[in-house]
Amino acid sequence: MKVNYRELVKKVRGTSVPKPLSGTLSGHAAGEPFDKHVYNEIKKQLPKNTFRQYEYLNDLYSKNPEIIGNKARQELFDSPSVLFLLSRGKDATNKWSLENPFDEKQDDTADILVVKDGFFEIIDIKTRNLSKSAQAPNIISSFKLAQMCAKMIDNHEFDNLSISYFEVDWELKDRKLICKDAHYAHLFRATPKNLYINWAAAMQIQFHVSNLDQDFKGSVEGWAKAYLKHFVAQVYRRSQYMVEKYAKPFERYIK
Amino acid sequence: MKVNYRELVKKVRGTSVPKPLSGTLSGHAAGEPFDKHVYNEIKKQLPKNTFRQYEYLNDLYSKNPEIIGNKARQELFDSPSVLFLLSRGKDATNKWSLENPFDEKQDDTADILVVKDGFFEIIDIKTRNLSKSAQAPNIISSFKLAQMCAKMIDNHEFDNLSISYFEVDWELKDRKLICKDAHYAHLFRATPKNLYINWAAAMQIQFHVSNLDQDFKGSVEGWAKAYLKHFVAQVYRRSQYMVEKYAKPFERYIK
Repeated sequence: MKVNYRELVKKVRGTSVPKPLSGTLSGHAAGEPFDKHVYNEIKKQLPKNTFRQYEYLNDLYSKNPEIIGNKARQELFDSPSVLFLLSRGKDATNKWSLENPFDEKQDDTADILVVKDGFFEIIDIKTRNLSKSAQAPNIISSFKLAQMCAKMIDNHEFDNLSISYFEVDWELKDRKLICKDAHYAHLFRATPKNLYINWAAAMQIQFHVSNLDQDFKGSVEGWAKAYLKHFVAQVYRRSQYMVEKYAKPFERYIK
Repeated sequence: MKVNYRELVKKVRGTSVPKPLSGTLSGHAAGEPFDKHVYNEIKKQLPKNTFRQYEYLNDLYSKNPEIIGNKARQELFDSPSVLFLLSRGKDATNKWSLENPFDEKQDDTADILVVKDGFFEIIDIKTRNLSKSAQAPNIISSFKLAQMCAKMIDNHEFDNLSISYFEVDWELKDRKLICKDAHYAHLFRATPKNLYINWAAAMQIQFHVSNLDQDFKGSVEGWAKAYLKHFVAQVYRRSQYMVEKYAKPFERYIK
Protein backbone atom coordinates (compact mmCIF):
# COMPACT_ATOMS: atom_id res chain seq x y z
CA MET A 1 0.00 0.00 0.00
CA LYS A 2 1.14 3.49 -0.88
CA VAL A 3 -0.66 5.58 1.73
CA ASN A 4 1.17 6.05 5.00
CA TYR A 5 -1.74 5.51 7.39
CA ARG A 6 0.24 6.02 10.56
CA GLU A 7 1.28 9.44 9.28
CA LEU A 8 -2.32 10.13 8.26
CA VAL A 9 -3.59 9.45 11.77
CA LYS A 10 -1.05 11.92 13.15
CA LYS A 11 -2.08 14.59 10.66
CA VAL A 12 -5.80 14.20 11.27
CA ARG A 13 -5.89 13.70 15.04
CA GLY A 14 -6.55 16.99 16.84
CA THR A 15 -7.72 18.86 13.76
CA SER A 16 -11.17 20.36 13.44
CA VAL A 17 -13.70 21.20 10.77
CA PRO A 18 -16.65 23.63 10.91
CA LYS A 19 -19.94 22.16 12.05
CA PRO A 20 -22.15 21.52 9.01
CA LEU A 21 -24.84 24.17 8.63
CA SER A 22 -27.77 21.82 8.30
CA GLY A 23 -29.31 21.30 11.69
CA THR A 24 -28.83 17.77 12.90
CA LEU A 25 -25.61 15.98 13.71
CA SER A 26 -27.07 12.57 13.07
CA GLY A 27 -26.11 10.04 10.50
CA HIS A 28 -24.01 10.33 7.42
CA ALA A 29 -23.94 14.07 6.81
CA ALA A 30 -22.41 15.16 10.11
CA GLY A 31 -18.93 13.82 9.61
CA GLU A 32 -18.73 14.60 5.91
CA PRO A 33 -16.35 17.55 6.28
CA PHE A 34 -13.83 15.11 7.76
CA ASP A 35 -14.12 12.93 4.70
CA LYS A 36 -12.89 15.86 2.58
CA HIS A 37 -10.24 16.67 5.14
CA VAL A 38 -8.80 13.14 5.04
CA TYR A 39 -8.91 13.21 1.24
CA ASN A 40 -6.85 16.38 1.23
CA GLU A 41 -4.28 14.86 3.58
CA ILE A 42 -3.91 11.76 1.41
CA LYS A 43 -3.60 13.97 -1.65
CA LYS A 44 -0.70 15.72 0.06
CA GLN A 45 1.04 12.36 0.37
CA LEU A 46 0.26 11.25 -3.19
CA PRO A 47 -0.85 14.26 -5.23
CA LYS A 48 -0.90 12.57 -8.62
CA ASN A 49 -2.42 9.31 -7.47
CA THR A 50 -5.32 10.31 -5.24
CA PHE A 51 -8.85 10.39 -6.60
CA ARG A 52 -12.47 10.29 -5.70
CA GLN A 53 -13.95 7.19 -7.32
CA TYR A 54 -16.00 9.27 -9.78
CA GLU A 55 -12.96 11.45 -10.52
CA TYR A 56 -10.96 8.38 -11.43
CA LEU A 57 -13.66 7.17 -13.79
CA ASN A 58 -14.03 10.61 -15.36
CA ASP A 59 -10.27 10.74 -15.76
CA LEU A 60 -10.04 7.29 -17.30
CA TYR A 61 -12.83 7.87 -19.82
CA SER A 62 -11.64 11.42 -20.64
CA LYS A 63 -8.19 10.15 -21.52
CA ASN A 64 -9.77 7.70 -23.94
CA PRO A 65 -12.33 9.83 -25.77
CA GLU A 66 -12.38 7.46 -28.75
CA ILE A 67 -13.57 4.61 -26.52
CA ILE A 68 -17.35 4.82 -26.43
CA GLY A 69 -20.07 2.77 -24.82
CA ASN A 70 -20.21 0.51 -21.80
CA LYS A 71 -18.55 -2.54 -23.31
CA ALA A 72 -15.51 -0.76 -24.71
CA ARG A 73 -15.14 1.32 -21.57
CA GLN A 74 -15.20 -1.80 -19.41
CA GLU A 75 -12.18 -3.03 -21.32
CA LEU A 76 -10.21 0.01 -20.20
CA PHE A 77 -9.91 -1.75 -16.85
CA ASP A 78 -7.14 -4.32 -16.90
CA SER A 79 -8.62 -6.08 -13.92
CA PRO A 80 -12.01 -7.79 -13.65
CA SER A 81 -11.98 -7.34 -9.85
CA VAL A 82 -11.27 -3.62 -10.08
CA LEU A 83 -13.84 -3.29 -12.84
CA PHE A 84 -16.40 -5.00 -10.64
CA LEU A 85 -15.70 -2.78 -7.64
CA LEU A 86 -15.31 0.58 -9.31
CA SER A 87 -17.30 0.82 -12.53
CA ARG A 88 -20.77 2.29 -12.69
CA GLY A 89 -23.79 0.56 -14.18
CA LYS A 90 -24.26 -0.19 -17.86
CA ASP A 91 -26.70 2.65 -18.56
CA ALA A 92 -24.68 5.24 -16.74
CA THR A 93 -21.47 4.16 -18.50
CA ASN A 94 -23.15 4.24 -21.90
CA LYS A 95 -24.38 7.75 -21.26
CA TRP A 96 -21.05 9.08 -19.99
CA SER A 97 -19.50 11.86 -22.06
CA LEU A 98 -17.14 14.80 -21.51
CA GLU A 99 -20.23 16.98 -21.22
CA ASN A 100 -22.01 14.49 -18.98
CA PRO A 101 -19.39 13.17 -16.56
CA PHE A 102 -20.07 11.20 -13.37
CA ASP A 103 -20.84 12.91 -10.10
CA GLU A 104 -20.32 11.59 -6.57
CA LYS A 105 -22.68 8.73 -5.72
CA GLN A 106 -23.49 7.60 -2.23
CA ASP A 107 -23.10 3.90 -2.77
CA ASP A 108 -19.77 4.07 -4.57
CA THR A 109 -17.40 1.46 -3.14
CA ALA A 110 -14.54 3.86 -2.45
CA ASP A 111 -14.58 7.27 -0.86
CA ILE A 112 -10.98 7.65 -1.94
CA LEU A 113 -8.92 5.80 -4.48
CA VAL A 114 -5.15 5.78 -4.69
CA VAL A 115 -3.92 4.37 -7.98
CA LYS A 116 -0.22 3.78 -8.55
CA ASP A 117 1.77 1.29 -10.61
CA GLY A 118 -1.36 -0.68 -11.45
CA PHE A 119 -2.32 -1.07 -7.78
CA PHE A 120 -5.72 0.14 -6.57
CA GLU A 121 -5.92 1.20 -2.96
CA ILE A 122 -9.56 1.59 -2.04
CA ILE A 123 -10.19 3.71 1.05
CA ASP A 124 -13.48 4.23 2.83
CA ILE A 125 -13.85 6.92 5.48
CA LYS A 126 -16.05 6.28 8.50
CA THR A 127 -16.82 9.15 10.82
CA ARG A 128 -18.01 8.54 14.35
CA ASN A 129 -19.72 10.89 16.78
CA LEU A 130 -18.13 10.06 20.13
CA SER A 131 -21.04 11.52 22.07
CA LYS A 132 -23.30 8.78 20.77
CA SER A 133 -22.91 5.05 21.26
CA ALA A 134 -23.80 4.24 17.70
CA GLN A 135 -24.28 0.81 16.23
CA ALA A 136 -21.41 -0.29 14.01
CA PRO A 137 -21.73 1.30 10.56
CA ASN A 138 -22.39 -0.37 7.24
CA ILE A 139 -19.06 -1.27 5.65
CA ILE A 140 -19.75 -3.14 2.43
CA SER A 141 -22.34 -5.57 1.12
CA SER A 142 -21.35 -9.08 2.17
CA PHE A 143 -22.65 -10.36 -1.19
CA LYS A 144 -20.66 -7.83 -3.19
CA LEU A 145 -17.59 -8.88 -1.26
CA ALA A 146 -18.29 -12.54 -2.03
CA GLN A 147 -18.62 -11.72 -5.72
CA MET A 148 -15.34 -9.82 -5.58
CA CYS A 149 -13.58 -12.77 -3.93
CA ALA A 150 -14.93 -15.13 -6.60
CA LYS A 151 -13.65 -12.81 -9.33
CA MET A 152 -10.24 -12.60 -7.72
CA ILE A 153 -10.03 -16.38 -7.59
CA ASP A 154 -11.39 -16.85 -11.13
CA ASN A 155 -8.79 -14.43 -12.50
CA HIS A 156 -5.89 -15.25 -10.15
CA GLU A 157 -5.81 -11.59 -9.17
CA PHE A 158 -4.47 -11.26 -5.68
CA ASP A 159 -2.02 -8.41 -5.79
CA ASN A 160 -3.65 -5.45 -7.48
CA LEU A 161 -6.08 -4.07 -4.92
CA SER A 162 -6.57 -3.45 -1.25
CA ILE A 163 -9.51 -2.19 0.78
CA SER A 164 -8.81 -0.04 3.84
CA TYR A 165 -11.01 1.76 6.32
CA PHE A 166 -10.17 4.97 8.10
CA GLU A 167 -12.22 6.05 11.14
CA VAL A 168 -12.38 9.63 12.39
CA ASP A 169 -13.73 9.93 15.95
CA TRP A 170 -15.08 13.42 16.54
CA GLU A 171 -16.76 15.54 19.15
CA LEU A 172 -18.72 18.77 18.82
CA LYS A 173 -17.13 21.72 20.63
CA ASP A 174 -17.72 25.44 20.08
CA ARG A 175 -19.44 24.94 16.71
CA LYS A 176 -16.58 22.81 15.50
CA LEU A 177 -16.14 19.10 15.05
CA ILE A 178 -12.87 18.12 16.66
CA CYS A 179 -11.10 14.90 15.73
CA LYS A 180 -10.23 13.26 19.04
CA ASP A 181 -8.72 10.17 17.49
CA ALA A 182 -8.36 8.28 14.23
CA HIS A 183 -7.94 4.61 13.35
CA TYR A 184 -7.31 2.50 10.29
CA ALA A 185 -7.66 -1.14 9.37
CA HIS A 186 -7.17 -3.26 6.29
CA LEU A 187 -9.92 -5.64 5.26
CA PHE A 188 -7.59 -8.39 4.04
CA ARG A 189 -5.91 -8.48 7.43
CA ALA A 190 -9.14 -8.96 9.37
CA THR A 191 -10.08 -12.52 10.30
CA PRO A 192 -12.85 -13.36 7.82
CA LYS A 193 -14.82 -15.59 10.16
CA ASN A 194 -15.23 -12.72 12.65
CA LEU A 195 -16.93 -10.41 10.16
CA TYR A 196 -20.50 -9.67 11.22
CA ILE A 197 -23.18 -9.66 8.53
CA ASN A 198 -26.39 -7.77 9.25
CA TRP A 199 -28.84 -9.56 6.97
CA ALA A 200 -31.74 -7.23 7.68
CA ALA A 201 -29.61 -4.18 6.86
CA ALA A 202 -29.12 -4.92 3.19
CA MET A 203 -26.69 -7.80 4.00
CA GLN A 204 -24.07 -5.29 5.07
CA ILE A 205 -20.91 -6.18 6.92
CA GLN A 206 -20.78 -3.95 9.98
CA PHE A 207 -17.91 -3.04 12.27
CA HIS A 208 -16.23 -0.14 13.97
CA VAL A 209 -12.84 0.28 12.32
CA SER A 210 -11.21 0.73 15.72
CA ASN A 211 -12.53 -2.69 16.80
CA LEU A 212 -11.57 -4.64 13.69
CA ASP A 213 -9.00 -7.34 14.39
CA GLN A 214 -5.94 -7.37 12.15
CA ASP A 215 -4.83 -10.88 12.96
CA PHE A 216 -5.17 -12.62 9.60
CA LYS A 217 -1.71 -13.77 8.59
CA GLY A 218 -2.42 -15.52 5.28
CA SER A 219 -2.25 -14.34 1.68
CA VAL A 220 -4.98 -12.42 -0.12
CA GLU A 221 -5.85 -15.66 -1.92
CA GLY A 222 -6.23 -17.32 1.46
CA TRP A 223 -8.37 -14.43 2.62
CA ALA A 224 -10.70 -14.65 -0.37
CA LYS A 225 -11.25 -18.36 0.16
CA ALA A 226 -11.71 -17.98 3.91
CA TYR A 227 -14.20 -15.17 3.37
CA LEU A 228 -16.24 -17.23 0.90
CA LYS A 229 -16.29 -20.11 3.35
CA HIS A 230 -17.52 -17.78 6.08
CA PHE A 231 -20.10 -16.14 3.84
CA VAL A 232 -21.59 -19.41 2.60
CA ALA A 233 -21.73 -20.76 6.16
CA GLN A 234 -23.48 -17.59 7.32
CA VAL A 235 -26.02 -17.81 4.49
CA TYR A 236 -26.97 -21.31 5.60
CA ARG A 237 -27.09 -20.22 9.22
CA ARG A 238 -29.30 -17.23 8.50
CA SER A 239 -31.52 -19.29 6.24
CA GLN A 240 -32.12 -21.77 9.06
CA TYR A 241 -32.48 -19.07 11.70
CA MET A 242 -35.22 -17.38 9.68
CA VAL A 243 -37.29 -20.54 9.69
CA GLU A 244 -36.75 -21.09 13.42
CA LYS A 245 -37.43 -17.53 14.48
CA TYR A 246 -39.97 -16.29 11.97
CA ALA A 247 -41.86 -19.31 10.63
CA LYS A 248 -42.02 -22.00 13.34
CA PRO A 249 -43.66 -19.86 16.08
CA PHE A 250 -46.58 -19.04 13.78
CA GLU A 251 -47.23 -22.42 12.25
CA ARG A 252 -49.71 -23.49 14.90
CA TYR A 253 -52.02 -20.66 13.82
CA ILE A 254 -52.31 -21.67 10.20
CA LYS A 255 -53.36 -25.29 10.22
CA MET B 1 -63.59 3.57 12.36
CA LYS B 2 -64.25 7.06 13.65
CA VAL B 3 -62.20 9.15 11.25
CA ASN B 4 -63.98 10.25 8.09
CA TYR B 5 -61.19 9.60 5.60
CA ARG B 6 -63.10 10.74 2.55
CA GLU B 7 -63.67 14.09 4.25
CA LEU B 8 -60.00 14.17 5.26
CA VAL B 9 -58.87 13.75 1.65
CA LYS B 10 -61.07 16.68 0.63
CA LYS B 11 -59.64 18.87 3.39
CA VAL B 12 -56.03 18.05 2.63
CA ARG B 13 -56.03 17.99 -1.16
CA GLY B 14 -54.95 21.35 -2.60
CA THR B 15 -53.52 22.68 0.65
CA SER B 16 -49.89 23.66 1.04
CA VAL B 17 -47.24 23.84 3.73
CA PRO B 18 -44.01 25.87 3.79
CA LYS B 19 -40.95 24.11 2.42
CA PRO B 20 -38.82 22.82 5.31
CA LEU B 21 -35.78 25.04 5.92
CA SER B 22 -33.20 22.27 5.93
CA GLY B 23 -31.76 21.91 2.47
CA THR B 24 -32.75 18.64 0.88
CA LEU B 25 -36.19 17.45 -0.06
CA SER B 26 -35.22 13.80 0.15
CA GLY B 27 -36.46 11.18 2.48
CA HIS B 28 -38.48 11.39 5.61
CA ALA B 29 -38.02 15.01 6.62
CA ALA B 30 -39.42 16.65 3.51
CA GLY B 31 -43.05 15.74 3.92
CA GLU B 32 -43.12 16.12 7.69
CA PRO B 33 -45.07 19.38 7.71
CA PHE B 34 -47.92 17.49 6.03
CA ASP B 35 -47.89 14.96 8.81
CA LYS B 36 -48.71 17.75 11.28
CA HIS B 37 -51.26 19.20 8.89
CA VAL B 38 -53.14 15.90 8.63
CA TYR B 39 -52.98 15.52 12.40
CA ASN B 40 -54.61 18.92 12.83
CA GLU B 41 -57.37 18.03 10.39
CA ILE B 42 -58.14 14.78 12.20
CA LYS B 43 -58.12 16.65 15.50
CA LYS B 44 -60.78 18.96 14.06
CA GLN B 45 -62.95 15.90 13.41
CA LEU B 46 -62.30 14.31 16.81
CA PRO B 47 -60.77 16.89 19.14
CA LYS B 48 -60.92 14.84 22.33
CA ASN B 49 -59.87 11.56 20.78
CA THR B 50 -56.89 12.40 18.61
CA PHE B 51 -53.37 11.87 19.90
CA ARG B 52 -49.79 11.38 18.90
CA GLN B 53 -48.73 7.94 20.11
CA TYR B 54 -46.41 9.44 22.74
CA GLU B 55 -49.12 11.89 23.80
CA TYR B 56 -51.50 9.04 24.40
CA LEU B 57 -48.96 7.21 26.55
CA ASN B 58 -48.12 10.38 28.49
CA ASP B 59 -51.82 10.97 28.97
CA LEU B 60 -52.51 7.43 30.14
CA TYR B 61 -49.64 7.33 32.64
CA SER B 62 -50.31 10.89 33.88
CA LYS B 63 -53.90 10.02 34.70
CA ASN B 64 -52.65 7.12 36.79
CA PRO B 65 -49.80 8.66 38.76
CA GLU B 66 -50.04 6.00 41.47
CA ILE B 67 -49.28 3.27 38.91
CA ILE B 68 -45.51 3.00 38.75
CA GLY B 69 -43.10 0.77 36.83
CA ASN B 70 -43.31 -1.13 33.58
CA LYS B 71 -45.36 -4.08 34.78
CA ALA B 72 -48.10 -2.08 36.45
CA ARG B 73 -48.22 0.40 33.57
CA GLN B 74 -48.61 -2.45 31.09
CA GLU B 75 -51.75 -3.48 32.94
CA LEU B 76 -53.30 -0.10 32.19
CA PHE B 77 -53.87 -1.41 28.68
CA ASP B 78 -56.97 -3.56 28.52
CA SER B 79 -55.78 -5.16 25.31
CA PRO B 80 -52.65 -7.27 24.76
CA SER B 81 -52.64 -6.37 21.04
CA VAL B 82 -52.85 -2.65 21.70
CA LEU B 83 -50.23 -2.98 24.43
CA PHE B 84 -47.95 -4.76 21.97
CA LEU B 85 -48.36 -2.14 19.26
CA LEU B 86 -48.27 1.03 21.31
CA SER B 87 -46.24 0.63 24.49
CA ARG B 88 -42.60 1.60 24.72
CA GLY B 89 -39.81 -0.68 25.93
CA LYS B 90 -39.42 -1.91 29.49
CA ASP B 91 -36.62 0.48 30.46
CA ALA B 92 -38.29 3.52 28.96
CA THR B 93 -41.60 2.69 30.67
CA ASN B 94 -39.89 2.14 34.03
CA LYS B 95 -38.20 5.51 33.75
CA TRP B 96 -41.32 7.40 32.73
CA SER B 97 -42.46 10.13 35.13
CA LEU B 98 -44.41 13.40 34.98
CA GLU B 99 -41.05 15.17 34.85
CA ASN B 100 -39.66 12.73 32.31
CA PRO B 101 -42.46 12.05 29.80
CA PHE B 102 -42.08 10.38 26.42
CA ASP B 103 -41.11 12.33 23.34
CA GLU B 104 -41.84 11.51 19.70
CA LYS B 105 -39.91 8.46 18.47
CA GLN B 106 -39.30 7.65 14.86
CA ASP B 107 -40.20 4.00 15.00
CA ASP B 108 -43.43 4.42 16.89
CA THR B 109 -46.14 2.32 15.24
CA ALA B 110 -48.64 5.14 14.89
CA ASP B 111 -48.18 8.68 13.70
CA ILE B 112 -51.68 9.41 14.90
CA LEU B 113 -53.94 7.56 17.27
CA VAL B 114 -57.68 8.03 17.55
CA VAL B 115 -59.07 6.42 20.68
CA LYS B 116 -62.80 6.28 21.29
CA ASP B 117 -65.10 3.85 23.08
CA GLY B 118 -62.24 1.40 23.62
CA PHE B 119 -61.38 1.31 19.92
CA PHE B 120 -57.86 2.20 18.78
CA GLU B 121 -57.56 3.62 15.30
CA ILE B 122 -53.90 3.63 14.34
CA ILE B 123 -53.02 5.98 11.50
CA ASP B 124 -49.69 6.25 9.73
CA ILE B 125 -48.99 9.17 7.37
CA LYS B 126 -46.92 8.58 4.24
CA THR B 127 -45.78 11.56 2.25
CA ARG B 128 -44.72 11.22 -1.35
CA ASN B 129 -42.73 13.58 -3.54
CA LEU B 130 -44.45 13.36 -6.92
CA SER B 131 -41.37 14.63 -8.76
CA LYS B 132 -39.49 11.46 -7.83
CA SER B 133 -40.38 7.91 -8.72
CA ALA B 134 -39.56 6.59 -5.31
CA GLN B 135 -39.54 2.99 -4.23
CA ALA B 136 -42.51 2.04 -2.08
CA PRO B 137 -41.96 3.16 1.52
CA ASN B 138 -41.52 1.06 4.63
CA ILE B 139 -44.91 0.43 6.16
CA ILE B 140 -44.47 -1.87 9.14
CA SER B 141 -42.24 -4.77 10.11
CA SER B 142 -43.69 -7.97 8.69
CA PHE B 143 -42.56 -9.79 11.85
CA LYS B 144 -44.18 -7.27 14.18
CA LEU B 145 -47.38 -7.65 12.20
CA ALA B 146 -47.17 -11.45 12.53
CA GLN B 147 -46.70 -11.11 16.28
CA MET B 148 -49.69 -8.79 16.43
CA CYS B 149 -51.85 -11.25 14.49
CA ALA B 150 -50.81 -14.06 16.83
CA LYS B 151 -51.75 -11.94 19.86
CA MET B 152 -55.12 -11.08 18.34
CA ILE B 153 -55.84 -14.76 17.78
CA ASP B 154 -54.53 -15.82 21.22
CA ASN B 155 -56.77 -13.27 22.92
CA HIS B 156 -59.75 -13.38 20.55
CA GLU B 157 -59.35 -9.66 20.01
CA PHE B 158 -60.66 -8.76 16.61
CA ASP B 159 -62.69 -5.64 17.10
CA ASN B 160 -60.68 -3.15 19.09
CA LEU B 161 -58.10 -1.82 16.66
CA SER B 162 -57.56 -0.84 13.06
CA ILE B 163 -54.48 0.24 11.12
CA SER B 164 -54.91 2.79 8.34
CA TYR B 165 -52.49 4.56 6.03
CA PHE B 166 -52.90 8.04 4.63
CA GLU B 167 -50.76 9.16 1.70
CA VAL B 168 -50.13 12.82 0.85
CA ASP B 169 -48.79 13.34 -2.70
CA TRP B 170 -46.97 16.65 -2.92
CA GLU B 171 -45.04 18.83 -5.31
CA LEU B 172 -42.67 21.70 -4.66
CA LYS B 173 -43.86 25.02 -6.08
CA ASP B 174 -42.76 28.56 -5.15
CA ARG B 175 -41.11 27.44 -1.92
CA LYS B 176 -44.21 25.59 -0.87
CA LEU B 177 -45.15 21.94 -0.83
CA ILE B 178 -48.54 21.58 -2.45
CA CYS B 179 -50.71 18.54 -1.84
CA LYS B 180 -51.83 17.42 -5.29
CA ASP B 181 -53.74 14.41 -4.07
CA ALA B 182 -54.31 12.23 -1.03
CA HIS B 183 -55.22 8.56 -0.57
CA TYR B 184 -56.11 6.23 2.25
CA ALA B 185 -56.25 2.50 2.74
CA HIS B 186 -56.99 0.13 5.58
CA LEU B 187 -54.58 -2.70 6.26
CA PHE B 188 -57.25 -5.25 7.21
CA ARG B 189 -58.94 -4.71 3.87
CA ALA B 190 -55.82 -5.40 1.83
CA THR B 191 -55.38 -8.91 0.47
CA PRO B 192 -52.72 -10.40 2.77
CA LYS B 193 -51.08 -12.58 0.15
CA ASN B 194 -50.30 -9.53 -2.01
CA LEU B 195 -48.27 -7.77 0.69
CA TYR B 196 -44.64 -7.40 -0.34
CA ILE B 197 -41.98 -8.06 2.29
CA ASN B 198 -38.54 -6.53 1.71
CA TRP B 199 -36.34 -8.89 3.73
CA ALA B 200 -33.17 -6.88 3.25
CA ALA B 201 -34.86 -3.69 4.42
CA ALA B 202 -35.46 -4.78 8.00
CA MET B 203 -38.22 -7.18 6.91
CA GLN B 204 -40.50 -4.25 6.18
CA ILE B 205 -43.75 -4.52 4.30
CA GLN B 206 -43.61 -1.94 1.53
CA PHE B 207 -46.34 -0.41 -0.58
CA HIS B 208 -47.64 2.87 -1.89
CA VAL B 209 -50.93 3.54 -0.14
CA SER B 210 -52.49 4.59 -3.42
CA ASN B 211 -51.67 1.17 -4.91
CA LEU B 212 -52.86 -0.98 -2.04
CA ASP B 213 -55.78 -3.22 -2.99
CA GLN B 214 -58.80 -3.10 -0.68
CA ASP B 215 -60.36 -6.30 -1.87
CA PHE B 216 -60.25 -8.44 1.26
CA LYS B 217 -63.82 -9.21 2.21
CA GLY B 218 -63.31 -11.43 5.27
CA SER B 219 -63.32 -10.66 8.98
CA VAL B 220 -60.35 -9.33 10.94
CA GLU B 221 -59.91 -12.85 12.34
CA GLY B 222 -59.78 -14.14 8.78
CA TRP B 223 -57.29 -11.45 7.90
CA ALA B 224 -54.97 -12.31 10.80
CA LYS B 225 -54.94 -15.99 9.84
CA ALA B 226 -54.45 -15.24 6.15
CA TYR B 227 -51.60 -12.87 6.95
CA LEU B 228 -49.84 -15.45 9.13
CA LYS B 229 -50.20 -18.00 6.37
CA HIS B 230 -48.67 -15.57 3.89
CA PHE B 231 -45.88 -14.54 6.26
CA VAL B 232 -44.84 -18.12 7.07
CA ALA B 233 -44.88 -19.06 3.38
CA GLN B 234 -42.72 -16.03 2.55
CA VAL B 235 -40.24 -16.90 5.30
CA TYR B 236 -39.75 -20.36 3.78
CA ARG B 237 -39.47 -18.86 0.32
CA ARG B 238 -36.88 -16.31 1.35
CA SER B 239 -34.96 -18.88 3.34
CA GLN B 240 -34.68 -21.09 0.25
CA TYR B 241 -33.93 -18.17 -2.07
CA MET B 242 -31.02 -17.11 0.11
CA VAL B 243 -29.36 -20.50 -0.28
CA GLU B 244 -29.93 -20.54 -4.03
CA LYS B 245 -28.76 -17.01 -4.68
CA TYR B 246 -26.10 -16.40 -2.06
CA ALA B 247 -24.67 -19.79 -1.08
CA LYS B 248 -24.81 -22.12 -4.09
CA PRO B 249 -22.84 -19.94 -6.54
CA PHE B 250 -19.89 -19.79 -4.16
CA GLU B 251 -19.72 -23.39 -3.01
CA ARG B 252 -17.36 -24.46 -5.77
CA TYR B 253 -14.71 -22.11 -4.36
CA ILE B 254 -14.62 -23.56 -0.89
CA LYS B 255 -14.03 -27.26 -1.33
